[in-house]
Amino acid sequence: MTQNAADTVSKTPLTLLGLGAMGTALAGAWLAAGHPLTVWNRTAAKAGPLAARGAAVAAGAAEAVAANRLVVVCLLDDASIEEALAGADLTGKDVVNLITGTPGTARARAAWATARGARYLDGGIMAVPPMIGIPQAGPYVFYSGSRDLFEEHRATLAAPADARYVGADAGFAALHDVALLSAMYGMFGGVAHAFALVRGESVDPRELAPLLSSWLTAMAGSVAATAEHLAAGDYTGGVASSLAMQVAGVPTFLRTAEEQGVSAELLTPYFDLMRRRLAADPARHGAEDLTGVVDLLRG
Amino acid sequence: MTQNAADTVSKTPLTLLGLGAMGTALAGAWLAAGHPLTVWNRTAAKAGPLAARGAAVAAGAAEAVAANRLVVVCLLDDASIEEALAGADLTGKDVVNLITGTPGTARARAAWATARGARYLDGGIMAVPPMIGIPQAGPYVFYSGSRDLFEEHRATLAAPADARYVGADAGFAALHDVALLSAMYGMFGGVAHAFALVRGESVDPRELAPLLSSWLTAMAGSVAATAEHLAAGDYTGGVASSLAMQVAGVPTFLRTAEEQGVSAELLTPYFDLMRRRLAADPARHGAEDLTGVVDLLRG
Repeated sequence: MTQNAADTVSKTPLTLLGLGAMGTALAGAWLAAGHPLTVWNRTAAKAGPLAARGAAVAAGAAEAVAANRLVVVCLLDDASIEEALAGADLTGKDVVNLITGTPGTARARAAWATARGARYLDGGIMAVPPMIGIPQAGPYVFYSGSRDLFEEHRATLAAPADARYVGADAGFAALHDVALLSAMYGMFGGVAHAFALVRGESVDPRELAPLLSSWLTAMAGSVAATAEHLAAGDYTGGVASSLAMQVAGVPTFLRTAEEQGVSAELLTPYFDLMRRRLAADPARHGAEDLTGVVDLLRG
Repeated sequence: MTQNAADTVSKTPLTLLGLGAMGTALAGAWLAAGHPLTVWNRTAAKAGPLAARGAAVAAGAAEAVAANRLVVVCLLDDASIEEALAGADLTGKDVVNLITGTPGTARARAAWATARGARYLDGGIMAVPPMIGIPQAGPYVFYSGSRDLFEEHRATLAAPADARYVGADAGFAALHDVALLSAMYGMFGGVAHAFALVRGESVDPRELAPLLSSWLTAMAGSVAATAEHLAAGDYTGGVASSLAMQVAGVPTFLRTAEEQGVSAELLTPYFDLMRRRLAADPARHGAEDLTGVVDLLRG
């Protein structure tokens, strides 16, 4: 018995359905951590390299599900679950769904799994496949749904990436995932605008980059103040740059974009909301920070 | 002679025009650093506390300009310069303009000052007034224009905040300032969307905040890759999540916003540009990262 095989004895066996880029990365991490692993993929060829590393390859999804109590799903989309698991018996299974979806999709899938006798946990992966299994790359997964399932399989779930439980509501993992990525796309939009502004000037984007990323990192710290304001329901505490002052500065941003021949389409929606918030009650909202924009996003 | 007065002897004397929140903070920092300071403000009462700390208060702007070779301008806006300095003799002066404006405004003001016999430096302040004079708060100022002026007065300029020279083109300080703040507003828009998504759910915004800020900080690191791509003119190197994959994920973001009752107005312009980039040439652009959005912002 090799050292590896000895390790394996105490590690929870599990099944993984779906061997796309993310599924393959997860499978590799579980194998590396010594977990007995059964895999299934619609296109069987994808399983070859994993089989060579010791994974059992199931002939069908139902067979893969039957092999272990813990079943991790990393298929293409939610519709693929219905299709793949139509004939599978989920009674007594612990289903962990890592397919990216909306909170609503996750809640519906939780009800579906529960009705079939399974415990259900939903996951939102905050990483790209090359980060999986590399702790220093900082990959993590939001989990929500059955806390019992999470606690029982915590060590197994944490093998490929740090596991963070965010609530019993099965939709919360997707909600957190989408919230963070939405914020990121907003930032990427701002960054694209910034790079467009300096284009055509004798400014090397590689010299602007560290200035941009350190500025954004510093400003990301203000998220905490926004959260405090939202929790307090008052947006005027500790405001260094008021909404009134910032609205007064908006024309400089729009004129600069125009001077540089850059479309301001990525910034105007935010500036419009700043102006709407101020205009709604200048005396009251003028002294706030920018938190009031959050209010305007919800009808 | 007190120790303070002894320090003063070797420090460059200067004039500051404009005592709004930022001008007052700057004046305080220069006084604290031992610089002989002459101030002027349209509303004279603002100068009182500074006079008590040793500043000379000029009766008019022309008199204030006459008092020192180095003249820092922190008036309300560009039009205020024309008004305040109509009767001032700028021959041989070193004018440092800290008024926030566009690159075009800065270039025009540089030509104006140079035509009047002055050297000109434009500044873009990357800080709010409470950060001035507090090095650990990380305040800094972009400077552009006369390098001779900058080098000669570097120590004086660095007293209130770190001084960073970004080029002989007088418009570059404003360009860098606006670029960084534009990126910040993009990020703030994304953050507002994220907080709006969790509102009405049992998610404490103060628990989401550290997740958001550490995620944004991690993702701000990708700015360097964008810059490398722009410099290389090729957007396919080291792509972990392709444009094609990210466009495929867009409906999840839009549907989540809809489920949560949140307007997607802050994100749709960016998603639209992602889709336009992909649609323009799916085979070629599909393997890129998101850098191509920058191309679409310039007509």
